[in-house]
Amino acid sequence: MRGIVAFYLTYLLCLILGIICVALVVHWNYSYRGGFAWDGSAKHFNWHPVFMVTGMVVLYGNAAILYRIPLTWGHNKLPWKLLHAGLLLLSFILSVIGLCAVFNYHNANNISNLYSLHSWVGICTTALFTAQWVMGFSTFLLPCTPMSARAFIKPTHVWMGGIILVLSIVSCISGINEKLFFALKENTNGTLPYSALPPEAITANALGVIIVAFGLVVLKILSNQIWQRPETGYEEGVYQPLGYDGS
Amino acid sequence: MRGIVAFYLTYLLCLILGIICVALVVHWNYSYRGGFAWDGSAKHFNWHPVFMVTGMVVLYGNAAILYRIPLTWGHNKLPWKLLHAGLLLLSFILSVIGLCAVFNYHNANNISNLYSLHSWVGICTTALFTAQWVMGFSTFLLPCTPMSARAFIKPTHVWMGGIILVLSIVSCISGINEKLFFALKENTNGTLPYSALPPEAITANALGVIIVAFGLVVLKILSNQIWQRPETGYEEGVYQPLGYDGS
Repeated sequence: MRGIVAFYLTYLLCLILGIICVALVVHWNYSYRGGFAWDGSAKHFNWHPVFMVTGMVVLYGNAAILYRIPLTWGHNKLPWKLLHAGLLLLSFILSVIGLCAVFNYHNANNISNLYSLHSWVGICTTALFTAQWVMGFSTFLLPCTPMSARAFIKPTHVWMGGIILVLSIVSCISGINEKLFFALKENTNGTLPYSALPPEAITANALGVIIVAFGLVVLKILSNQIWQRPETGYEEGVYQPLGYDGS
Repeated sequence: MRGIVAFYLTYLLCLILGIICVALVVHWNYSYRGGFAWDGSAKHFNWHPVFMVTGMVVLYGNAAILYRIPLTWGHNKLPWKLLHAGLLLLSFILSVIGLCAVFNYHNANNISNLYSLHSWVGICTTALFTAQWVMGFSTFLLPCTPMSARAFIKPTHVWMGGIILVLSIVSCISGINEKLFFALKENTNGTLPYSALPPEAITANALGVIIVAFGLVVLKILSNQIWQRPETGYEEGVYQPLGYDGS
């Protein structure tokens, strides 16, 4: 019982931090970077951080810890599997829109693509995420996959899930850092430089710190053995191929 | 037996990646950034990436996985505990020298300290590392700490150990990315911009990718249950206060 209370308190913290991340990334780009558009201008770029933080961090992290919520521990795992896969598909779609935003902006302004270390790590993260989703779908949702294959792949799937979140956070922090050095330069329209820590710098730095805190809470939830979904008694639900459990 | 072979192959990969990290960060700063000095010049700054990557990533990662090496699984854990604490102390000292390098350089050139997101994450990482080392020493090496406290704190110590490595990698990637945007600007002494991916950019980006790969291998070694030090039969060595096991 104490474990469940501790879980829900940690989960509440995770939800609050996730909401703050989304609010802060929107606030930063809306209030300080001029807002949003889809016209090749700087406002087009502003969708990039919003979609990447919302998709690859907040939604992804929440989808990853879905099975840790005791509410989902009923006999029939299938609806939660579909929700897990569905949320991650939505997270993937948001990430692709976020990537389109930066590629479109670069192409419209003759800026090279994929040269910075941020972009190298980011694109590898998205590629890994794609592979993970396809592998997860083939293994855990296609009825033809044998249970032995599911049991064999599950630890790798769980481990990769955590690692992709770590890589997303690496990409976000390096990206926010890079953007602030680009945007906050002395004497450009009276803007204070990053080094003077104007309100925008504090806002975006705080966003970075809260993204890290959110990631750590998700990793804590994932790693805590006590909070794992109890498999005993639910085995037939765990490795049940799609449609075999009457749903 | 297969587990041990797999471990040593992964460990070999970890050692090779670690050596490449150190070689690349030295090569980058020696061959492209003008080498090293301790005189407040740009060469003074160059020690920063070298000491942080060597201390907070490579040495730290190797110290973290020490107990996973089957060679260390003898009855007496104390010498390995001392080696673990000693390597981490060395890693901490190198990190402090690395921090001194950047603070000295900034102060000598009237550059603000601790304004970027990179610096915020980095300084929090070092603070956490300090707390972790002090807590680890007090808990696992001081003879007065009761075994119950050791058993209680151990999972948090192990988890924090992995998290500090993750934060070190976040700091390194954002730092390398930032440095390349600062250093590789068009028309500065004929330097090609970062976006043109000159040899220096490829070298430092590759360093970033290999730091991430090294970190993932260390996290894989730490997380693999099969490679954990077997505690059964060694319990008296595990929570033995310093000096109580005849060494």
